[in-house]
Amino acid sequence: MARYVDKHKGFKKLIKVDEALKIIMENLDVVGYEEVFIEDACWRVLYEDLLSNRDVPPFDRAAMDGYAVRSVDVAGASENNPIRLRVVGEVRASKLYEGVVGPMEAVRIDTGAPMPEGSDAVVILEDTEFRDGYIDVFRSVSKFGNVSVRGEDVKRGELLFKKGHLLHPYDVALLKYLGYSRLKVYRKVRVSLASIGNELFEVGEDAGESGIIESNRVLITGVLSRWPVEFMRSVILPDEEDAIQKFISDSIRDSDLIVTTGGTSLGRGDVMTDYVYSIGDVFFHGVALQPSKPVLFALVGGKPFLGLPGYPVAAAISTFMFVEPAIMKLAGISGSPIYRVVRARLTRRVASKLGMLQVVRVKVRKDGDEYLATPVYGSGAGVLSSLSKGDGFLLIPENVEGYDEGALVDVHIYREVI
Amino acid sequence: MARYVDKHKGFKKLIKVDEALKIIMENLDVVGYEEVFIEDACWRVLYEDLLSNRDVPPFDRAAMDGYAVRSVDVAGASENNPIRLRVVGEVRASKLYEGVVGPMEAVRIDTGAPMPEGSDAVVILEDTEFRDGYIDVFRSVSKFGNVSVRGEDVKRGELLFKKGHLLHPYDVALLKYLGYSRLKVYRKVRVSLASIGNELFEVGEDAGESGIIESNRVLITGVLSRWPVEFMRSVILPDEEDAIQKFISDSIRDSDLIVTTGGTSLGRGDVMTDYVYSIGDVFFHGVALQPSKPVLFALVGGKPFLGLPGYPVAAAISTFMFVEPAIMKLAGISGSPIYRVVRARLTRRVASKLGMLQVVRVKVRKDGDEYLATPVYGSGAGVLSSLSKGDGFLLIPENVEGYDEGALVDVHIYREVI
Repeated sequence: MARYVDKHKGFKKLIKVDEALKIIMENLDVVGYEEVFIEDACWRVLYEDLLSNRDVPPFDRAAMDGYAVRSVDVAGASENNPIRLRVVGEVRASKLYEGVVGPMEAVRIDTGAPMPEGSDAVVILEDTEFRDGYIDVFRSVSKFGNVSVRGEDVKRGELLFKKGHLLHPYDVALLKYLGYSRLKVYRKVRVSLASIGNELFEVGEDAGESGIIESNRVLITGVLSRWPVEFMRSVILPDEEDAIQKFISDSIRDSDLIVTTGGTSLGRGDVMTDYVYSIGDVFFHGVALQPSKPVLFALVGGKPFLGLPGYPVAAAISTFMFVEPAIMKLAGISGSPIYRVVRARLTRRVASKLGMLQVVRVKVRKDGDEYLATPVYGSGAGVLSSLSKGDGFLLIPENVEGYDEGALVDVHIYREVI
Repeated sequence: MARYVDKHKGFKKLIKVDEALKIIMENLDVVGYEEVFIEDACWRVLYEDLLSNRDVPPFDRAAMDGYAVRSVDVAGASENNPIRLRVVGEVRASKLYEGVVGPMEAVRIDTGAPMPEGSDAVVILEDTEFRDGYIDVFRSVSKFGNVSVRGEDVKRGELLFKKGHLLHPYDVALLKYLGYSRLKVYRKVRVSLASIGNELFEVGEDAGESGIIESNRVLITGVLSRWPVEFMRSVILPDEEDAIQKFISDSIRDSDLIVTTGGTSLGRGDVMTDYVYSIGDVFFHGVALQPSKPVLFALVGGKPFLGLPGYPVAAAISTFMFVEPAIMKLAGISGSPIYRVVRARLTRRVASKLGMLQVVRVKVRKDGDEYLATPVYGSGAGVLSSLSKGDGFLLIPENVEGYDEGALVDVHIYREVI
């Protein structure tokens, strides 16, 4: 198997991000399904098209609190010319009204209650005045005014959601309302995660003078916690073949995706990289992405393997650029996270290297009607705080040398609040 | 206690949404704190200002794989005029280099490794060619080029995050990297939730002809699952005083916020509303918000009580308008969820009633460089599917009669993917 790197010379060729993503996507198999209780279906992904099994509402019903009337009776009613109706009964949300509403009659009705026979509209409470068994109606109402008619919300047989739909709580509520008690969803994506390097220590351990506390796993598991993912293992590995072999063989057996950080640059202690080259099919190694060049993608034992750089900033950016899209594909999700993108005005010039897709961390602030984006000082992969000082990523394409101060750019926001 | 409603006449006066929010905010006490392991700190809220306890990096280190050199030695190096240096050793990420780099010498260095004494820059691997113990350097490098200098990322004593900061995984990774093993965070907000109504049934129960399957709890718990919230109870209650009394007294004892849906409109079976009026201080009842007028806020036994309408759409919109901001305040979160707002062009006119803040569900699509927002047909509170057919909320202020086709509007996106 040809290597994409030369240990003394560096990356022979950097693949463009778009091509890299295309290769990754082509080599991912969407996971299978499982059934879950409706209460556990939020943020899961539908495995089948869902059609409505009923009309909603199942009958014509009041959309407001008020009086069920015949609309013809109140035609022309106004503040100056109220029309008086006789109140002949009431109907509450959980009951059916037994009688029929006749001419110049009204029935007190609650929101959601079935419309009594004979009535075709609701006069809202605020437009009436009640006295001695009668109401004065101060406003006319058209036929079906303030009435939800049968099937107006959802029609029986209507397509509700397509396979691949990420279920928002609003969607789950609708399905529960329709009586669904269990749903077929894609099962969670099983991920094995390792941070590789002899220099890595756990919190609480003595890292010594040149060791560092490992922080990539909490970063990646935290980011992926917003997606339907289950971690099979999340470990620190030394640059030792035994440990790496065991991690890989365990992960091949039970995972849909293997993600590692560290050990994919051109450092000479990269036992993981050597091992992946020796047993897997390496599709690319080295991406035209700054910062985050040393990304490797392979199939190992048939399973997709994403080797990310070990520097936390590069690990974060390659997670955003490659791991999240891979998870979305594996999880069966249709659509893309456009909600994260806001248009913002740059407060100062940013430069970029031609031929590389550059990811700049920016701080975003609202200023009147628009957003302002300020590049965070220190764009090196080593500047871990740049992620914390920023709120979003600005992507500068390969063929752009930079953006001027005042330019309008798209920023991928990664925070919940700013 | 004066009532804000007249059972026959309707809401006496509708409070504006801004005023309602102001009143709610004034009556919320931020929760206390707890300590959590760093691994559990994602999406939690810092309880204290955090200063850095160290310099990052703790020493000057290589920012790229390459050779540590003296920058003066490679001044003027180019493709046509390479400069040859002798390779005198190597330094790996976890080790310190023992020697000193002298004139015309180079040390092979991995990203992250401490810079050897004497060297002041890194020539990246791609700009060199190695042969027989020497390298040819094809590009000059300035002093500190490709070097992360001590404290460049984070300076000891620097303010990292303020109290109230919602911790993103990137932030947690930084803190872990700095050696923090536990963090003081606001404890989760304790919420008691009830759906009220004799017409409500659980999934799997026979709802009969006029009963409905309860769906508000899965909606509200789902939406709030993105915030640091812990549910103390989440129940269906009948319109019966015993059950309601028990729910309220249990909730007063252990919760920071009580949320109910249903039983706050002008229907006559509103046992919960009567009970809250009898034992609590009602601050407002009836909001100029469409759809979602019958919102009630009270202090009950000193605890904030938000009574939302029972219709799922109204429950969803009042959760968005009132419950989420209340949770953010209680949880100690600084900032606002601006990331959810995108600017979009309306594909058709929407009308609105003056004097009410109208919430319109819109479907959002990307069209070239801009977003298009299409109002979802059926804006009544009863149209549950409008939430599922939409992707976001368009808020039309009280003093605006509507927006024309083609107008640019702000849409609050509620989906993760579109």
